[in-house]
Amino acid sequence: MLKNDLILRAARGEKTERTPVWLMRQAGRILPEYRAVRNSLSGFKELVETPELAAEVTIQPVDILGVDAAIIFSDILVIPEAMGLTYEMVEKKGPHFPKTVESKSDIDSLKVADPDDLSYVYEAIKITKKELDGRVPIIGFAGAPWTIFSYMIEGGGSKTFSKARRFLYTDPAMANQLLEMITSSTIGYLKKQVEAGANMLQIFDSWAGVLPPEHYTQFSLKYIAKICDAITDVPITVFAKGAWWALPEMANINCRTVGLDWNMNPHESRKVLPNKTLQGNLDPCALYGSNESIKEETRNMLEAFGDQPHIANLGHGVYPDTDPQKVKYFVDTVKELSAH
Amino acid sequence: MLKNDLILRAARGEKTERTPVWLMRQAGRILPEYRAVRNSLSGFKELVETPELAAEVTIQPVDILGVDAAIIFSDILVIPEAMGLTYEMVEKKGPHFPKTVESKSDIDSLKVADPDDLSYVYEAIKITKKELDGRVPIIGFAGAPWTIFSYMIEGGGSKTFSKARRFLYTDPAMANQLLEMITSSTIGYLKKQVEAGANMLQIFDSWAGVLPPEHYTQFSLKYIAKICDAITDVPITVFAKGAWWALPEMANINCRTVGLDWNMNPHESRKVLPNKTLQGNLDPCALYGSNESIKEETRNMLEAFGDQPHIANLGHGVYPDTDPQKVKYFVDTVKELSAH
Repeated sequence: MLKNDLILRAARGEKTERTPVWLMRQAGRILPEYRAVRNSLSGFKELVETPELAAEVTIQPVDILGVDAAIIFSDILVIPEAMGLTYEMVEKKGPHFPKTVESKSDIDSLKVADPDDLSYVYEAIKITKKELDGRVPIIGFAGAPWTIFSYMIEGGGSKTFSKARRFLYTDPAMANQLLEMITSSTIGYLKKQVEAGANMLQIFDSWAGVLPPEHYTQFSLKYIAKICDAITDVPITVFAKGAWWALPEMANINCRTVGLDWNMNPHESRKVLPNKTLQGNLDPCALYGSNESIKEETRNMLEAFGDQPHIANLGHGVYPDTDPQKVKYFVDTVKELSAH
Repeated sequence: MLKNDLILRAARGEKTERTPVWLMRQAGRILPEYRAVRNSLSGFKELVETPELAAEVTIQPVDILGVDAAIIFSDILVIPEAMGLTYEMVEKKGPHFPKTVESKSDIDSLKVADPDDLSYVYEAIKITKKELDGRVPIIGFAGAPWTIFSYMIEGGGSKTFSKARRFLYTDPAMANQLLEMITSSTIGYLKKQVEAGANMLQIFDSWAGVLPPEHYTQFSLKYIAKICDAITDVPITVFAKGAWWALPEMANINCRTVGLDWNMNPHESRKVLPNKTLQGNLDPCALYGSNESIKEETRNMLEAFGDQPHIANLGHGVYPDTDPQKVKYFVDTVKELSAH
């Protein structure tokens, strides 16, 4: 039994006694307690693949920051790895794929992931669940197929994602083949996360914003919709960073919550998504400000979401150089100002 | 006298016998003829600062691609350099500032640019004008103050621009001081470009999209408006990449043309900007496609802009690995399909 199920009730569209709050990237990055664990290891992947330690850093923000949910510490790139394309995490630079997808034969050499190859993630969820003992729900997650596709072709981040986007014009059939494989892999993976104890799921479409709207519908939202249709037992949040034009289309997706980045207007979003819970959307840079400034920005945000079911969060992952005290102040302020 | 003034008439909102077309970043990047000039020199800055050669690469796309305007070959970072903050252009990486702005004393050590320090740009415009002999108009340009500010603080590109954006929360007065200095520098610079022969001007707000809407109004659009108010003798284009929410506000700016990126919907943009000329907005990746695909995408684009005064362009700068033949095909296709 959950002692705090605020976020699940908000996700179901119910009125809650206050607004639940968590932060994208809360597990890791900002906490000295996280860095202590991380620095004792050979690298980021060792942490992802060691369930006891992944569970430990997953729970840290619940203990230290008082957030209303734990998001399992992992990486969206475990899916391409389970499909046969391994990644490295380069310190201060980000992910790097030694081998990338360049042709149809590269795709043919990949497989749909066997969900059991990612058992370290489910094990981390089980340990987290046991150790949390019902204090807060657990959020599982995966990358959106388009975002995973981009990494598999680009081999890392990119300013333009022009290699990945090129395929949508030159070989849409090949693009769809790979997107289908990623989608099937992701569905199996998310189902197993739920079996292991995830109470809700979030799909991160980090590179949504680079696509023209027609391509977004065709090559990203279509696959997100398939995932949402396949998973019916827990509420799903879709966060498509930068895809402001797609908000009206999100109304037709079987997700319960839509995440907003800090460019998206909560008022306008409420108009086009009256039946969804909305999540977000404070500018992560707002946490660099004074407590007074954070309080004002948080109040403005809460007022903008008004009486629509709302899960407070930043509009993107918390930045690594953010003072944990400011993060805690933000969490406390949401709790204080939204209570009624 | 100009033999082809299509783009100026379109910018003034007049009906034209066909849609004028040019490409952002057309001078440089894609043409082997450009690379031949570039490779004969020590670096990018030598090309920017040598008027005869800058003029030569400015004219190349007029000769080779048949575009309806020449945009002077230069860089938006000549402004911070003239203010006292020098930049380097690192091959395949982009701009780098050895020294960045970190404090108020750093700002106090800078000056408002003396426009005469950038005489190499005006000289390049004069030579271009002479050599073009009226074939097409010349476009001058500058970066928007917010974009220049970002570079001066970040020291280069960034995924989040969190250092630059941090100042907007922690020290807005200091941010405004620097933005004012950049704005004054830019006004002096653009006036001199017009004196030298620029027939129209474009303001590039490359990093518009990272700001929350309220900050965009306050820290970017306000300064763009000042520039547009100060320059009354040639039409101005404002291109704020990623700032889709700001399009309605652009109606109140003294610019004639608003540039759209490939995420922005021409139909929606026409509704909110019925009295502006619109520029754009083919996805640069569309030029990786077959000729048939380019023709279809170009037709769709032209139809979407309909009978609103329109300057055809990409939704961002042409990507360096684009085949010049495809660029020429795009230019020819705009000319063919829009003729009536």
